[in-house]
Amino acid sequence: MKKLSILGSTGSIGVNTLEIVAQHPERFQVVALGGGRNLKKMEEQILRFRPKLVSVLDAPSARSLRARIAAKTPEILFGMEGLAAVASHPEADMVVSALAGSIGLIPTFAAIRARKTLAIANKEPLVMAGEILMRESRKRGVAILPIDSEHSAIFQSLVGHRKEDIKRLILTASGGPFLKVPLAKLEQVSPEQALRHPRWKMGKKVTLDSASLMNKGLEVIEARWLFGVPESRIEVHIHPQSIVHSMVEYIDGSVVAQMALPDMRGPIAYALSYPERLNLQLPSLNLFAIRKLTFSPVEEERFPALGLAYRALEAGGTMPAVLNSANEAAVEAFLQGRLAFRQIPRLIRKVMDSHRVIAAPDLKEIINAHDWAQKKSQKKIDDIEKKSLER
Amino acid sequence: MKKLSILGSTGSIGVNTLEIVAQHPERFQVVALGGGRNLKKMEEQILRFRPKLVSVLDAPSARSLRARIAAKTPEILFGMEGLAAVASHPEADMVVSALAGSIGLIPTFAAIRARKTLAIANKEPLVMAGEILMRESRKRGVAILPIDSEHSAIFQSLVGHRKEDIKRLILTASGGPFLKVPLAKLEQVSPEQALRHPRWKMGKKVTLDSASLMNKGLEVIEARWLFGVPESRIEVHIHPQSIVHSMVEYIDGSVVAQMALPDMRGPIAYALSYPERLNLQLPSLNLFAIRKLTFSPVEEERFPALGLAYRALEAGGTMPAVLNSANEAAVEAFLQGRLAFRQIPRLIRKVMDSHRVIAAPDLKEIINAHDWAQKKSQKKIDDIEKKSLER
Repeated sequence: MKKLSILGSTGSIGVNTLEIVAQHPERFQVVALGGGRNLKKMEEQILRFRPKLVSVLDAPSARSLRARIAAKTPEILFGMEGLAAVASHPEADMVVSALAGSIGLIPTFAAIRARKTLAIANKEPLVMAGEILMRESRKRGVAILPIDSEHSAIFQSLVGHRKEDIKRLILTASGGPFLKVPLAKLEQVSPEQALRHPRWKMGKKVTLDSASLMNKGLEVIEARWLFGVPESRIEVHIHPQSIVHSMVEYIDGSVVAQMALPDMRGPIAYALSYPERLNLQLPSLNLFAIRKLTFSPVEEERFPALGLAYRALEAGGTMPAVLNSANEAAVEAFLQGRLAFRQIPRLIRKVMDSHRVIAAPDLKEIINAHDWAQKKSQKKIDDIEKKSLER
Repeated sequence: MKKLSILGSTGSIGVNTLEIVAQHPERFQVVALGGGRNLKKMEEQILRFRPKLVSVLDAPSARSLRARIAAKTPEILFGMEGLAAVASHPEADMVVSALAGSIGLIPTFAAIRARKTLAIANKEPLVMAGEILMRESRKRGVAILPIDSEHSAIFQSLVGHRKEDIKRLILTASGGPFLKVPLAKLEQVSPEQALRHPRWKMGKKVTLDSASLMNKGLEVIEARWLFGVPESRIEVHIHPQSIVHSMVEYIDGSVVAQMALPDMRGPIAYALSYPERLNLQLPSLNLFAIRKLTFSPVEEERFPALGLAYRALEAGGTMPAVLNSANEAAVEAFLQGRLAFRQIPRLIRKVMDSHRVIAAPDLKEIINAHDWAQKKSQKKIDDIEKKSLER
């Protein structure tokens, strides 16, 4: 019986994880759940999965949830301390790290420090502090299993093969809703259009990042740390069908790829049950029905965010955290209608341009850089808004 | 330093194997070579690779070769005993089994009995006597590594994963030169047309088998024994681009596939160096240049040979040997202009219809069934020829 703590249990990955747990009660048990604002869903999950510990957004949320739950268990905590307690619950064998955004950084570290096997969907902690995170996990003998479909695909294409034999990693990207939209029209796209992803149903932040390809940029950074492969040997291919989830090319010219219908339950279950697989009762991939698989290079002009991610990796140190932080601010502003879609990468570039990189930073320096970039971004967004109002 | 014996060194696989040996002299050394009629090429190989033992077709060939080679080494033998001596050379660590057709059966067994790691390209021994061959290899702790590109692809898609988790194996087939030819025209195709394979440069027998899809049928049987997966869970997909060399679907809906440009050096090198890989200096797979990857089901009417192979597996016992033997006779007759292309599967079906299966046969019974099918086929070919002359 594997005992799980789930950070982000009310989000898309969390809900899918719990669906797999419900399908395999003989294998998994939930000991702790961490969420945010969605108290209704958290209440449902408590009643269904009977965790011993739960954490929600803040003190009022905790009180409100306490009032709804008649039973004494679970213990209900809140805030960053609550999430850290979920991540390091003494009974947990594995922590599913599925919070959205940089908020997952501290709890993900808490899980590693507590020596929990980590199934990680939350890419921002790896983007911000991948080097430290991997170093800590190696030091403590903590296995990190990827949940992102691309990284799961690479992981599945790597097991049984030798890392020394890797020639390049090829991450695939669907290209999102704007792959074929004329460039001129991209200036005016709305949040509604950007949130209409052609292949995957995901949370807002990652769907938006998929439209700009920043999501793929963050994944390149994630892959760099998860697999220890330098960015010069990580490539991105546009693959609109989203069937091949990523590939590994080896030095002998052989390419191993993982395919599946787009369904997050596959990668989640693989991380949960590795090295075994679960029979998920999913339909078989029907390659006859999928008319063709195609691959094309990324248009730099259409998707400048990807280049920014490579640039951040090359700059190293605190720069990836700044990229990520500026992106979070820009995406939020776009969703609020304060920024145009094409202004997202422009803003990020400007914030990066004005950042002085700290090499080999510690966690505090990374968080400082993140906070600095937040403020810098907010200021720039205010300026842009002012200018556009004056016009 | 890995010491190699190569059965079929002057054939297509043998020549490619020696090219890899020449590229990596720090890793491989040739101790014995077995060939047939091509004395000129064998002489070249002797001068270049300095084997200690060589075997050729027959006594006159051996005398002729002896006369050409001034030096005392190598020892020169001939015939089946010569091949068996090559296969069991005391210094060899690995035997590359790359003879064409059923002639490889005895030497392949000799290699297993001598406890040599086997890199196998010669599919007919596995087709004829797969069950016995695998049982013997398990008993003696002999590893069998596939060289056929499809089986190498499956092997590469299986390492690091659990056999218990396999849902199905998917072998890909280019479809050969007759994939799009109108069925009516198939009656009149010539050997020259049948030997024009769109993707692979191979020996005559396997090229011809690719045109009828019997090659894929033999590979289904081969896969059944190599990977221990029943035929009901082995499928064939037509994939005209020959980039995805085969796939494994797992119970969680994940499909792992191996891709490469069609070049036999890839799978040969993987078998030679497994679990490591060799840097073969081959060009990278450029998925942008390959416009699309497509997959379609096999048309049964166009390719009846595939169904015959499944039928032979289901019948079991001596039937696969009969299928293979009748196919060898029919292909030979087609190449000699004695049989039309569409008569190949018809002849095989008739011979299979008149065979009484021996269940759980020993090696002798398999060879007897093979010989019986040869004679039966020859008789039927004579009858067909007589009839067409009378017309």
